[in-house]
Amino acid sequence: MTLGDGLFETIKVTKGQPRHFHAHMMRLREGAAALAITIPKTDTAIAASIEELLVANALQDAAVRLTVSRGPAPIGVLAPETQMPTMLITASALPPAHGPVRAIIALSTRRNEQSPLARIKSLNYLDSIIARQEAERYGVDDALMLNTQGRLAEATCSNVFFLIDGSLVTPPVSDGALPGVVRADLIARFRGEELSLDLDHLSRAEEAFLCNAFGIRPLIDIAGQPIGDGAPGLVTQMLATRV
Amino acid sequence: MTLGDGLFETIKVTKGQPRHFHAHMMRLREGAAALAITIPKTDTAIAASIEELLVANALQDAAVRLTVSRGPAPIGVLAPETQMPTMLITASALPPAHGPVRAIIALSTRRNEQSPLARIKSLNYLDSIIARQEAERYGVDDALMLNTQGRLAEATCSNVFFLIDGSLVTPPVSDGALPGVVRADLIARFRGEELSLDLDHLSRAEEAFLCNAFGIRPLIDIAGQPIGDGAPGLVTQMLATRV
Repeated sequence: MTLGDGLFETIKVTKGQPRHFHAHMMRLREGAAALAITIPKTDTAIAASIEELLVANALQDAAVRLTVSRGPAPIGVLAPETQMPTMLITASALPPAHGPVRAIIALSTRRNEQSPLARIKSLNYLDSIIARQEAERYGVDDALMLNTQGRLAEATCSNVFFLIDGSLVTPPVSDGALPGVVRADLIARFRGEELSLDLDHLSRAEEAFLCNAFGIRPLIDIAGQPIGDGAPGLVTQMLATRV
Repeated sequence: MTLGDGLFETIKVTKGQPRHFHAHMMRLREGAAALAITIPKTDTAIAASIEELLVANALQDAAVRLTVSRGPAPIGVLAPETQMPTMLITASALPPAHGPVRAIIALSTRRNEQSPLARIKSLNYLDSIIARQEAERYGVDDALMLNTQGRLAEATCSNVFFLIDGSLVTPPVSDGALPGVVRADLIARFRGEELSLDLDHLSRAEEAFLCNAFGIRPLIDIAGQPIGDGAPGLVTQMLATRV
């Protein structure tokens, strides 16, 4: 764990049911394959452990976090020959519903779309933490991160969507967007399209929102420029009730 | 610790004395400032803890690892308002002296010189682990990592130096080289120069070596192309006895 050598998933649980469970498991296993980590349990066993944890803590609605580490390793960057991966499952109360988001464009760091880590939910999360600290210094809620070529990738723990000329668009995974579970759902069910976005696109957006496992939040202001009329958009509000 | 939100240093100890102790502490504190982590101890207290650990384990020669984590945090990427950072100090036997290194150029990932993480020794080390796994698949010892612009940055846990036209050169920190402690020592004491290096430079190298806290290892082959005559160089061997 001391080199960030692992993966995680954060799963929303409502009425005792993990949301998008199979999509989370698929992403976890794709990440494990990329890092050559063996997930020590089947999906069925993981689902049973989550249920046991929820029952033991009398939780109906919760945020469940799965953390998988490669396990003990000798000093250095070489993976151990015999893996003994560990899995930690924790549950906490759902984060409170938050209102609209004001964001900056992070200047402190860039998301590296040229690394496979951009496409998996690994424990190497410091670039997002640095960008979020920058947002805090500016007194806003979040930061949008650019990739190494200056194109938009995502926010610090959410994907980002824009409504431009009536189309729902979001940065492609190849530009450094994490393949989010709710992002995929929006693409599949609401004809969202992947589109490389640079800063010029933002001024043309009629609406914008962030999404992650916990849902959708309107993005109403980027670097002091209001999106649309600066209020949560109609399409955004409609989608927020349906993910 | 579950987001790689911390820093580390690996210090070589010989005859009970930590090598380059103040340079390691300076880098640790620069990293802590970049991440807004408070190091919970003074350098003097850290030195005393290291000595205590070495004495308790009857170690004269050792690899000491300091790991600093931001400490407990709520779920999400926002740093806790009140920090309770933790420091873990471990000691293990010095790694055995290794021979010359054959390396590939990593194709699996790039080092992100556009992130401040390239300049600090953070717990986000997965890109190096991925590159080292690629080297393993090719049956060689290590991988040289390129930055997002295709320039040479470093190896997976070492800096890299070349002797070109009689000059000792190494990639600049701005190209994604970690500011290594032995690297700095070589620059200061042996007139090493920072120079942006692309793949064309490698074919002109008379000698090459890797260096980290544990010393210098000759680099004799890159992607199947021998460096110089393919044997450890004379300058390399001379320097290896003096760091």
